[in-house]
Amino acid sequence: MNAAKPELKNDRFLRALMGQPVDATPVWMMRQAGRYLPEYRALRAEAGDFLSLCKNADFACEVTLQPLRRYDLDAAILFSDILTIPDAMGLGLYFETGEGPKFEKPVRTEADVTALTVPDMDADLGYVMNAVSTIRSALSGDVPLIGFSGSPWTLATYMIEGGSSKDFRQIKAMMYSTPELLHQVLSVLADSVIAYLNAQIAAGAQAVQIFDTWGGVLSGPCYQIFSLDYMQRIVNGLTRESEGRSVPIILFTKNGGQWLEKMAATGADALGLDWTIEVGQAHSRVGSKVALQGNMDPSVLYADAPTIQAEVGRILADFGSNDGHVFNLGHGIHQFVDPQSAKTFVDAVHDQSAQYH
Amino acid sequence: MNAAKPELKNDRFLRALMGQPVDATPVWMMRQAGRYLPEYRALRAEAGDFLSLCKNADFACEVTLQPLRRYDLDAAILFSDILTIPDAMGLGLYFETGEGPKFEKPVRTEADVTALTVPDMDADLGYVMNAVSTIRSALSGDVPLIGFSGSPWTLATYMIEGGSSKDFRQIKAMMYSTPELLHQVLSVLADSVIAYLNAQIAAGAQAVQIFDTWGGVLSGPCYQIFSLDYMQRIVNGLTRESEGRSVPIILFTKNGGQWLEKMAATGADALGLDWTIEVGQAHSRVGSKVALQGNMDPSVLYADAPTIQAEVGRILADFGSNDGHVFNLGHGIHQFVDPQSAKTFVDAVHDQSAQYH
Repeated sequence: MNAAKPELKNDRFLRALMGQPVDATPVWMMRQAGRYLPEYRALRAEAGDFLSLCKNADFACEVTLQPLRRYDLDAAILFSDILTIPDAMGLGLYFETGEGPKFEKPVRTEADVTALTVPDMDADLGYVMNAVSTIRSALSGDVPLIGFSGSPWTLATYMIEGGSSKDFRQIKAMMYSTPELLHQVLSVLADSVIAYLNAQIAAGAQAVQIFDTWGGVLSGPCYQIFSLDYMQRIVNGLTRESEGRSVPIILFTKNGGQWLEKMAATGADALGLDWTIEVGQAHSRVGSKVALQGNMDPSVLYADAPTIQAEVGRILADFGSNDGHVFNLGHGIHQFVDPQSAKTFVDAVHDQSAQYH
Repeated sequence: MNAAKPELKNDRFLRALMGQPVDATPVWMMRQAGRYLPEYRALRAEAGDFLSLCKNADFACEVTLQPLRRYDLDAAILFSDILTIPDAMGLGLYFETGEGPKFEKPVRTEADVTALTVPDMDADLGYVMNAVSTIRSALSGDVPLIGFSGSPWTLATYMIEGGSSKDFRQIKAMMYSTPELLHQVLSVLADSVIAYLNAQIAAGAQAVQIFDTWGGVLSGPCYQIFSLDYMQRIVNGLTRESEGRSVPIILFTKNGGQWLEKMAATGADALGLDWTIEVGQAHSRVGSKVALQGNMDPSVLYADAPTIQAEVGRILADFGSNDGHVFNLGHGIHQFVDPQSAKTFVDAVHDQSAQYH
């Protein structure tokens, strides 16, 4: 399907995700392409708005590469929005300044639910696949490219609330009152995410991450039924090998520290951790069944260099001399962080981790 | 100090908190006096604003009693604001419609920190103690009265951010960059909370709850150092007996499910649980060392009566035939809940729990 790709020069990230030995702990940052970088803000101003950045493959590629020019990162991640799927379903995604994403047509009634169908990956989401292949080509094999999607539960929260939420009133009312309706939404979303991530893999994504940003607002039993079961379906439906190499799957549920054993049982290759769980404790709970990715509090990047270095050192020591660790922040890098602090962070991971490998 | 109080007619709540046998599981709801009740909205409109409700003992008493007239609750909780202490410190608390609490003078610099002192409980917070004794007298021994305070960490987040926050940028920057400055803030706050809760107990509070609403945004090590250690100091400093009876202490850290063992080790009598942890699992982790309070997702109250009853039944069964359970929601009741659903909830706890006692 694609032209022959150049050989991968740095495969630490893919090796660590598969639990294989590496020379130093690989590192990337969630939202590494973003507002904390002046060159990002400049390009966004040129593009006009956030969605225009995502929908133009050249812009998306440029933004994806920006942090790689500054930092010695071990992976690139597709620059895109988490809500491309519901937008492609015709819900009318837009952004209101200071208020985050909104939908013109939130999903509330049975008729709204019945109208939902899996988007056409070429016609409706082809711009994402163009971005993936453009970025792959521009990377020239320097580091692997991560594709991603929101989890069905997380996408459903925005679709049903009509935007961001604090109390998740609408979706939880649906969950407890008419669960079968919510299951119908989640089912269409799971099928959509499978098609979406497989299309990204076909276009050149070398690993994929599922962002379950809002799974942590559920009770244990509800998390299982309304979030994890659908992520399980996705794990079962994804292409696990491409270009002769495994395509690792990373599951990340923010505030999901209590459910790591269940997440590991899905057959995903790695779990993303936020900073509320200690990586050593997490490792002793899931063993070598999955790799672990994380988990420094992004707010540590507001501190001075010695503090950042010490915190990196603490987390590395906590994970110890085991295989299967990808260093990351526990959530996206904040927009007010000094870009120099991100460099301190990335370098600290490489400098201090060699002793554990 | 106080006139002789009438004997307590219903002491299920206090007994359960001390791990003693009861005839049915006691129940109350966080924010049971609040906006979901039309009679509350009417009184608030009459008072003018939220702070006027808190600062007038007759208003505060009336609001506290409103839910007890509707529901068969086993405890009353003082109606007050979580931010009375920083307000008494002179930071200028105010409320902006739709934006929550704000401070005119946020705490940012070393000079701001040095200026903080423990407020005078009579001169600056006497209105709270008046409310406590007025409510105690109006309750006529029907059910016990709970006093409360925010935790030092939680109060500090509002003081340093200047209001609510999503990313806790200011306080975390201080925590990682100049931790000794934050410790100074937390130390003054811990001393203030001790004086504040002891004054509430002297005025008639029969149990106290410490609300650590934002402890869950910390990493494990930071939670220990910046939140739990100060709650420990409070537990050590509180009056544990009054009117010839134990005054139980409840610690509630939202999203603190991972740290229950550490919380139990403080010597508090009970832990509040949000809904992300299963109460049976929590019980097997902490045993009979502490009682447990919780933990139905408040959003279940958006569902129909059979669903509410089934969820109550599931949680009761999960806790099983053990002593030491106080039923509650996992967080405050939402403002859009139908008051009839709260009745369904409270009655379901009493109706279904007798079989376990």
